Amino acid sequence: MTIPSKPAKSASPHILSAARNIKAVILDVDGVLTDGKLYYGNQGEQLKTFNTQDGLGIKLLQRAGIKVGIITARSSQLVSRRAAELSLDYLIQGREDKLSALEELRADHSLPFTLAEIAYMGDDLPDLPVIRQVGLGMTVANASTTVTQYADWQSMFPGGAGAVREAAEMILGAQDKLDTVLAEYLT
Amino acid sequence: MTIPSKPAKSASPHILSAARNIKAVILDVDGVLTDGKLYYGNQGEQLKTFNTQDGLGIKLLQRAGIKVGIITARSSQLVSRRAAELSLDYLIQGREDKLSALEELRADHSLPFTLAEIAYMGDDLPDLPVIRQVGLGMTVANASTTVTQYADWQSMFPGGAGAVREAAEMILGAQDKLDTVLAEYLT
Amino acid sequence: MTIPSKPAKSASPHILSAARNIKAVILDVDGVLTDGKLYYGNQGEQLKTFNTQDGLGIKLLQRAGIKVGIITARSSQLVSRRAAELSLDYLIQGREDKLSALEELRADHSLPFTLAEIAYMGDDLPDLPVIRQVGLGMTVANASTTVTQYADWQSMFPGGAGAVREAAEMILGAQDKLDTVLAEYLT
Amino acid sequence: MTIPSKPAKSASPHILSAARNIKAVILDVDGVLTDGKLYYGNQGEQLKTFNTQDGLGIKLLQRAGIKVGIITARSSQLVSRRAAELSLDYLIQGREDKLSALEELRADHSLPFTLAEIAYMGDDLPDLPVIRQVGLGMTVANASTTVTQYADWQSMFPGGAGAVREAAEMILGAQDKLDTVLAEYLT
Repeated sequence: MTIPSKPAKSASPHILSAARNIKAVILDVDGVLTDGKLYYGNQGEQLKTFNTQDGLGIKLLQRAGIKVGIITARSSQLVSRRAAELSLDYLIQGREDKLSALEELRADHSLPFTLAEIAYMGDDLPDLPVIRQVGLGMTVANASTTVTQYADWQSMFPGGAGAVREAAEMILGAQDKLDTVLAEYLT
Repeated sequence: MTIPSKPAKSASPHILSAARNIKAVILDVDGVLTDGKLYYGNQGEQLKTFNTQDGLGIKLLQRAGIKVGIITARSSQLVSRRAAELSLDYLIQGREDKLSALEELRADHSLPFTLAEIAYMGDDLPDLPVIRQVGLGMTVANASTTVTQYADWQSMFPGGAGAVREAAEMILGAQDKLDTVLAEYLT
Repeated sequence: MTIPSKPAKSASPHILSAARNIKAVILDVDGVLTDGKLYYGNQGEQLKTFNTQDGLGIKLLQRAGIKVGIITARSSQLVSRRAAELSLDYLIQGREDKLSALEELRADHSLPFTLAEIAYMGDDLPDLPVIRQVGLGMTVANASTTVTQYADWQSMFPGGAGAVREAAEMILGAQDKLDTVLAEYLT
Repeated sequence: MTIPSKPAKSASPHILSAARNIKAVILDVDGVLTDGKLYYGNQGEQLKTFNTQDGLGIKLLQRAGIKVGIITARSSQLVSRRAAELSLDYLIQGREDKLSALEELRADHSLPFTLAEIAYMGDDLPDLPVIRQVGLGMTVANASTTVTQYADWQSMFPGGAGAVREAAEMILGAQDKLDTVLAEYLT
């Protein structure tokens, strides 16, 4: 596990080049869209905390024509709720083998992109196979050590506290689309 | 997105001068009055966390004759609850176009102030149009990068952890009213 | 408002001398026994988060013969629950004027101590009158600026994250009782 | 209480040697598997927050043949829920005397190991008797001061934020099993 305050991997020319090809961003939930905390009550898991700035980052990606989805090993109605509110393009829950889940989406043409056109962001070992296969393997400040070693890019912000927004802005910046999406707010 | 620990924009003479004119403070909710976390349960959003010291900051402003209100893009009963407890002067929910919402309040004379007499505090892109129009555009330690660039003043504390209190004390200090409101507690 | 990372006021000989006289410790709730977050749901305030190590600190004080109680301006059943679990000696809720509440407890002999024998810990302006009157006025790392100025002692830990435990150990240390209460766990 | 940012006790040759013998890891709940926050609602304690990366750390230990269990002084259905989801080998709740609870497990052969083969992780005084008896006494970044002094090893991460994962990786590393369990994710 890496210490959140360690310097993140910066967006090198190599990363920016990979980011330019991205047409879909797939996200893990726990530790990426959330801070990794599992709120348990007497009926089992009860809450997850998502981040409002991450939500806008996802909208910015979509407005720039980039698809956004979730593949997660756990399964809960609350994630469906959040995914619906964000109008996510893909939502796969309860799949421990995330790479197979991703390949199935590609095989049935609902995710009609090459691996080089897909970015994935995860924080722990079950995310490694996807992180290593896609064109842009991303992780978070609070990633487990091994994931940090294999990811192409690591956010400075931890999961649930801006990591997804940071990734969105990095990709949009690489594609020279950030100014366009920001312009809407600056007129 | 800026790193929370970066030095905040201090209250320069220019800012203090703008703060002297303020007769109403309008606040965003998520990321300003809260830490930006959205607590989702199976029925959707379930909780927001407000800060007790922010609550007193709002009371101090009101006691000094300054109006305080909320304009937020999201909508929930829990925000109405908190707004009622704080006896806020304005509560506008579910408005993505915050500048229009503000202008409507001014047009119907419920907010009878010039733009120069209004301060607004927000953390993200939808807040930019208001931040740029009002007399004192304020943001939080955890603001998105672009917002930091355009805001007149940035708190050292993040949203939900004292940012609103800090803003309240800065404005009251600029208006030479801080000692008066503090005096009540020091007799 | 002070920055949590600033150096806390250390326990000077003067403070240790005041701590030696303490026979009762009275605590504020929000920002002292909690982190100051108010969790709102659609029915109003729903949760507060207390700290497990603070709980043991309170038990250590009581085992050493020191009374422990709460005086808080807000009022909720959940605070009664926590107070009962901790077997607190005093619980006063819904009193904005905390000094009057304290004086009433003394007048009816339920708190049979001089002011010099009472310590109080609070984080914000409504706590100031008590902090200034009692023998040992304590505050937390996350206190508002004015409170920090008037308190005799400030914890390094913020409220809800060990501030009360730190205060308990400081007082027990000053009274040469810490080793005795620790000894139970070291046999 | 120690400051979370202080340097943790590193895994010295002596510690690695002790870690090599470990066949069971027993964990405290509050402050170790959680951040020590007790979420109270009107019906009493309502939530605890566990960490997703800790969960995988426990699975890695179990996959390497190491038993994992919980001994906690408090008692709640939500801990049973989390323990069941993690398929923990032992779950003892409501036992203030943790050392007796541990000895009973050993006496009835459900925990068929010598003390030298058992590691225990706790954060506060009631954990001390076990920490001092077992072969590997572990604590967390947020431990109380006395516990830090007596523990053999202290994690850099605080409870509920990766401390258990860090301990799991340290033990698996000492036993030269980390690469094997990681290999499953790297094929």
